[in-house]
Amino acid sequence: MYHVLSAHQFDRIQLDQLFRMADIMEYNAKNGGTNLLQGKIMAALFFEPSTRTRFSFESAMMRLSGSVISTENATQFSSAIKGETLEDSIRVISSYADVIVLRHNEEGAAKRAAQVAGVPVINAGDGSGEHPTQSLLDLYTIQKELGAIDGLKVAMVGDLTYGRTVHSLSYMLAKYEKVTVYFVSPENCPIPEKVKAYLDERGVTYFEETDLEKVSGEVDVLYMTRIQKERFPSGEEYLKAAGKYVINQEIVDGMKPNAIILHPLPRAGEILPEVDGDARAAYFRQATNGVYIRMALLAYCLKEQQLERDLEALAEVLK
Amino acid sequence: MYHVLSAHQFDRIQLDQLFRMADIMEYNAKNGGTNLLQGKIMAALFFEPSTRTRFSFESAMMRLSGSVISTENATQFSSAIKGETLEDSIRVISSYADVIVLRHNEEGAAKRAAQVAGVPVINAGDGSGEHPTQSLLDLYTIQKELGAIDGLKVAMVGDLTYGRTVHSLSYMLAKYEKVTVYFVSPENCPIPEKVKAYLDERGVTYFEETDLEKVSGEVDVLYMTRIQKERFPSGEEYLKAAGKYVINQEIVDGMKPNAIILHPLPRAGEILPEVDGDARAAYFRQATNGVYIRMALLAYCLKEQQLERDLEALAEVLK
Amino acid sequence: MYHVLSAHQFDRIQLDQLFRMADIMEYNAKNGGTNLLQGKIMAALFFEPSTRTRFSFESAMMRLSGSVISTENATQFSSAIKGETLEDSIRVISSYADVIVLRHNEEGAAKRAAQVAGVPVINAGDGSGEHPTQSLLDLYTIQKELGAIDGLKVAMVGDLTYGRTVHSLSYMLAKYEKVTVYFVSPENCPIPEKVKAYLDERGVTYFEETDLEKVSGEVDVLYMTRIQKERFPSGEEYLKAAGKYVINQEIVDGMKPNAIILHPLPRAGEILPEVDGDARAAYFRQATNGVYIRMALLAYCLKEQQLERDLEALAEVLK
Repeated sequence: MYHVLSAHQFDRIQLDQLFRMADIMEYNAKNGGTNLLQGKIMAALFFEPSTRTRFSFESAMMRLSGSVISTENATQFSSAIKGETLEDSIRVISSYADVIVLRHNEEGAAKRAAQVAGVPVINAGDGSGEHPTQSLLDLYTIQKELGAIDGLKVAMVGDLTYGRTVHSLSYMLAKYEKVTVYFVSPENCPIPEKVKAYLDERGVTYFEETDLEKVSGEVDVLYMTRIQKERFPSGEEYLKAAGKYVINQEIVDGMKPNAIILHPLPRAGEILPEVDGDARAAYFRQATNGVYIRMALLAYCLKEQQLERDLEALAEVLK
Repeated sequence: MYHVLSAHQFDRIQLDQLFRMADIMEYNAKNGGTNLLQGKIMAALFFEPSTRTRFSFESAMMRLSGSVISTENATQFSSAIKGETLEDSIRVISSYADVIVLRHNEEGAAKRAAQVAGVPVINAGDGSGEHPTQSLLDLYTIQKELGAIDGLKVAMVGDLTYGRTVHSLSYMLAKYEKVTVYFVSPENCPIPEKVKAYLDERGVTYFEETDLEKVSGEVDVLYMTRIQKERFPSGEEYLKAAGKYVINQEIVDGMKPNAIILHPLPRAGEILPEVDGDARAAYFRQATNGVYIRMALLAYCLKEQQLERDLEALAEVLK
Repeated sequence: MYHVLSAHQFDRIQLDQLFRMADIMEYNAKNGGTNLLQGKIMAALFFEPSTRTRFSFESAMMRLSGSVISTENATQFSSAIKGETLEDSIRVISSYADVIVLRHNEEGAAKRAAQVAGVPVINAGDGSGEHPTQSLLDLYTIQKELGAIDGLKVAMVGDLTYGRTVHSLSYMLAKYEKVTVYFVSPENCPIPEKVKAYLDERGVTYFEETDLEKVSGEVDVLYMTRIQKERFPSGEEYLKAAGKYVINQEIVDGMKPNAIILHPLPRAGEILPEVDGDARAAYFRQATNGVYIRMALLAYCLKEQQLERDLEALAEVLK
């Protein structure tokens, strides 16, 4: 059975295949859809609310003509007791659905689920763990917008210490050739040592910087994230740091003509709305790509499962 | 792109067309449905819960073979931050869905959403603003039940100062010929001056009254609404006022044989259950009509959008 | 119109028919599904959350190609008032959906709903009243696993005073021949007199026991339920009682080779996970059977309703 638990599970060849599938999914979605998953059911099992991610997965499933059962309140999975194990819930839902999309607050939850599930599990974020479909759509957007990832200069900006997305993106970029990474953050929330060690091992060039404008004109990709207020000792210091990393039209005007600005969204002031109309503002296209990537993953998991079942049935007949 | 933001956007000819479409939708719904919107996705984006309105829209979309992604908890649209702008949420959902049904607590929210949406927006109520599909289903029910709206006598009863539905219905009735309106309310919650000024300008005859039984025998339509307790200085005065406007079988017996009683529902004692079996009690039929009106609006918005996209694609080819 | 309000409404012949239908539904579900209810809408109207039961019904409806409108928050059915009557809500939803699945906290709610509904109502649990689909899936599982119900020895274990499922199962077993029932409970929560009186009347042999291990080796079916902490005067006494009724591998090893262990789930420690892999652990298969039983019931209700409507239409034409 094929689960999507971590972005790391994909090697370069698989990424290329996935992105080609996503291209085809976009074509399907824009041309009347496809019946690929007709009759299949996806369970969206969210232990914490994330309507954006849930909608993206549900939209993907419906574009494939599949059906959806859904909760953002999975902690109340049973009215009878609190504290049914995740394992029991997953086992039961395996008989209701053909694929489970799991969002959980605990790191490692997706892996635990996959160990007992009777159907494929897709990790839609497990606490401080992984959120592989976000990483994959980020990477897919870069490739789609710029034609290739090899050789690109990528800046990641904001709170880099706790930002799950920038860590994942760093790891994924290391699978490509001659990428240069610029980590731009306030001094109190730098990129962690483990990420740098990972890049060192793989020979990825990177720089650390606190001044956004020193790099914004150099890079092909400007990946913005939120500065989180609670990291700063005082509101004053927060404002000073946050104010340094605000993308306005002036900064965009200084960027390369073919560069792109990405953001995992929601934004909270890091990118001014005045920039939205610029062709380099790619963050809403990025959100759209999420649907195509998720369509590709759902299709892959379920078709692979169908094949397994068919083979089992065949083996049974031949026995 | 065609949005449904206000009942005012429909002129008399468009209303007639819409009501004919709703008739056809009823036929479709009762005869095995239609595949008109197969492959299309509706997002029900509710910033405040209103299961009744949500169910009505979702049922309408499903009767057209469309799919639905849905939340009544859109304030939690993102788990990451509070206060993403409505505009950003709408932009992102535009890539998940083909039409957005928006319920919001702030007046003007639907219009703001329409300005940035990549897909049609239907206003499902924005605070003290508009709730156009309610007005349209009210008007449709009157026409369907009584054959025509011109020349009718319509009483509106209850708290007329804050009742959004009765204001909208008043404005809509002004589009018809020789309608007479009776405003029946306690003295402390009369119909506002602005509504009366509007009717004056358009030459609509109206009367103000506090005694329901003086008009109930005269009118073709008795439109009941709730009296809201918090408007009254004391519980005693509330009960006195509320008690004056309770439809019982005796009052119904004194009504014209072909008159109808409407109510936007839910009711809270203004109409006794003993009346439900009377042929003049049209409020549950009114709720049913809501599905047909919403089917007609969804079909219109999405077919118009399809046409636009096809024309764009054609223009692209011809370029 | 055919409602599913109580497990009692089914006689032995109807149960056999239902179980045959459930077998066919399983075949359908595993072989690409069926379009039996295409174009039909099920409303899941839950006045208290029970994601497990809701998912099971929604999955069943979708396996039949039907659509679903759904809320676990039906107490907020209207944002306008608290306390709309259940009857009014049901009347309105009858115009949105083709079948209503109702979960309510008040005993008798399903029956009240059925009296005013314009469409079939299926009781998904009404307070301390009935939860007929649970009883039916329990019974179906026994028959499916063991081939027949006549002549079986069935133990029910746990809090038998308040356990709705064990009461219902007792009543249902009385419809079969030569069943022997063992009630195993702590002394302070025995099976109620009314259940015993019912079995006495119908000549069903039963025994009361406090020691699980005295019966576990004898029976064909071990039906486990939760011991509820709040029934015990002290935490210490609870632990003593609860600890007596924990199924571990040692107990399972002492059971008949073809016996089965059932549990309505969720479990809270009554069955250790070490037992899950044993072929006699049938509780997850039991949950799966719930989907097939609900498919059969939905199909039956809606096909019966279609037939009624067709006959009415025919009568209209012939008039």
